[in-house]
Amino acid sequence: MDVNFNGTTAEMLKIISDYDEVTGFNGAYNIREDSKCAGRRSSENITIESKEDKPGINIRVKPFTVGETVFIPACVTHSDVDDLVYNDFYIGEGADVVVVAGCGVHNDGEEQARHNGIHRFFLEKGARVLYKEKHIGTGKGTGLRKIDPVTDCVLDEDSYLEMDTIQLRGVDRTTRSTSAVLGKGAKIVVRERIMTDGDEEAVTKFHVELNGEDSGADLVSRSVARGNSHQAFYSVVEGNNRCTGHSACDAILADNGKVDAQPALNAANVDAALIHEAAIGKIAGEQILKLCSLGLTREEAEEKIIEGFLK
Amino acid sequence: MDVNFNGTTAEMLKIISDYDEVTGFNGAYNIREDSKCAGRRSSENITIESKEDKPGINIRVKPFTVGETVFIPACVTHSDVDDLVYNDFYIGEGADVVVVAGCGVHNDGEEQARHNGIHRFFLEKGARVLYKEKHIGTGKGTGLRKIDPVTDCVLDEDSYLEMDTIQLRGVDRTTRSTSAVLGKGAKIVVRERIMTDGDEEAVTKFHVELNGEDSGADLVSRSVARGNSHQAFYSVVEGNNRCTGHSACDAILADNGKVDAQPALNAANVDAALIHEAAIGKIAGEQILKLCSLGLTREEAEEKIIEGFLK
Repeated sequence: MDVNFNGTTAEMLKIISDYDEVTGFNGAYNIREDSKCAGRRSSENITIESKEDKPGINIRVKPFTVGETVFIPACVTHSDVDDLVYNDFYIGEGADVVVVAGCGVHNDGEEQARHNGIHRFFLEKGARVLYKEKHIGTGKGTGLRKIDPVTDCVLDEDSYLEMDTIQLRGVDRTTRSTSAVLGKGAKIVVRERIMTDGDEEAVTKFHVELNGEDSGADLVSRSVARGNSHQAFYSVVEGNNRCTGHSACDAILADNGKVDAQPALNAANVDAALIHEAAIGKIAGEQILKLCSLGLTREEAEEKIIEGFLK
Repeated sequence: MDVNFNGTTAEMLKIISDYDEVTGFNGAYNIREDSKCAGRRSSENITIESKEDKPGINIRVKPFTVGETVFIPACVTHSDVDDLVYNDFYIGEGADVVVVAGCGVHNDGEEQARHNGIHRFFLEKGARVLYKEKHIGTGKGTGLRKIDPVTDCVLDEDSYLEMDTIQLRGVDRTTRSTSAVLGKGAKIVVRERIMTDGDEEAVTKFHVELNGEDSGADLVSRSVARGNSHQAFYSVVEGNNRCTGHSACDAILADNGKVDAQPALNAANVDAALIHEAAIGKIAGEQILKLCSLGLTREEAEEKIIEGFLK
């Protein structure tokens, strides 16, 4: 494999993008390490090229490419890095692909280590994308580990984008901004899972414009705030045509965790049907007692419940 | 009766505060008409006095007063009035009373007619208040009819405030701001019903701080937006202690009506349990068909459903 990255990246790749040391990636890929390219491969149907005007890549998926996966992990492996990258995805008509875009930030030093990835998705007619984004922070330095992804999506007629994002530990600060503009019959599904602990802070922002007739959005965020961590969830779903929109935010509090949720619905068309719901609270006492009666300790019971909640 | 008001006020009083021309008000009252006092009566347990530093009154309810009602309707009966009034309610320990605070704005002219009532409620330990607020706009003038109520509440230990507010027609512009700070065991219940039509605009803002242990809030807003009207609903429920909070916003769209809903939950304590939900959309086709099959026209069916929704 034509790759050249350090051991820290290797460890993080296993977690964030199912990297196999023997077989590598099963598909096209681009590995970004400390603001540089540490490996790249295009496939017949998926080409990856460097941008000429700024850091980042263009990923082009040929029309009607079906069943392929493209991996674009990004790692920051030491202190005092502020990585900024622009990645654009052009998904051809009728394609059906998976994009794996994990991000790991390792920090053993005192300065901050940050990855800021600005992704744009352009889905042509009938294109389908499953976008998997797994974030992790590691290392024992006092410097902050920060990951600030921006994802802006344009969904053409009858296209479908599913975002599956997860951040379970070690990211001190994150602001995750996702916007989507949907055309006729387009659908977006977002599944977000976040767990914060210690003094971590996480902010999530969604802005979805349902502009096309029969477009739809389904946003579900599940989060757990432990320690002294703080999470804020903002979503705006605009119904500008005949459309359906749903957003949900469920959060579990533990220790001194704090969560703010502010999901907005803007119905600007009589045929827009918009719903949201949110629930924030700690794990119900009965749930824990039930598991304790089966032989688990209180801590084990709580872990089990959280594990199931974030699955 | 020691009252002196005009015919327009008389008509509006029947609608907004169940005024009976023969028997008058059954309790203490203060009638405000075009920024002046048009009648006042204190009772043994409820005293009403003018403020000395600004327009408005102080309403004092003696401790353990039970079953009494105080009426404080306010009417603006012509164009070019901008009424501003400060009314403070001091509800003594263990009292249990009803406050009827309707407001009518009549405008036959070209200039705007506005009522801006700033109400403060101070509920002492164990006090209970049912606060009824009915708003209406009438008259055929082109000048805007505006009602901008501000309600700021401080709820002491184990007190209970229920707000029942309704605005069904004729108010061109309204911004309704309600805030409440709750002590130990205090509860607030809000039931809001709004219907807008034509070019009317209505904004609702709630801000509730659940500061006391076992405090609770339950906010339910039901609204119907018809014509080219626009409604916006903002709520913030802060859970700062062991508490329960619920807010719900249900809206029916008709014609070109638009509704924005943005209910925020801020959970700052692990024992805060906060929930919200919102649903915006037009009346389901099946509901209308069902009623049509029983002999109603489409319009009659829609009216029936809206009537039930706002009941």
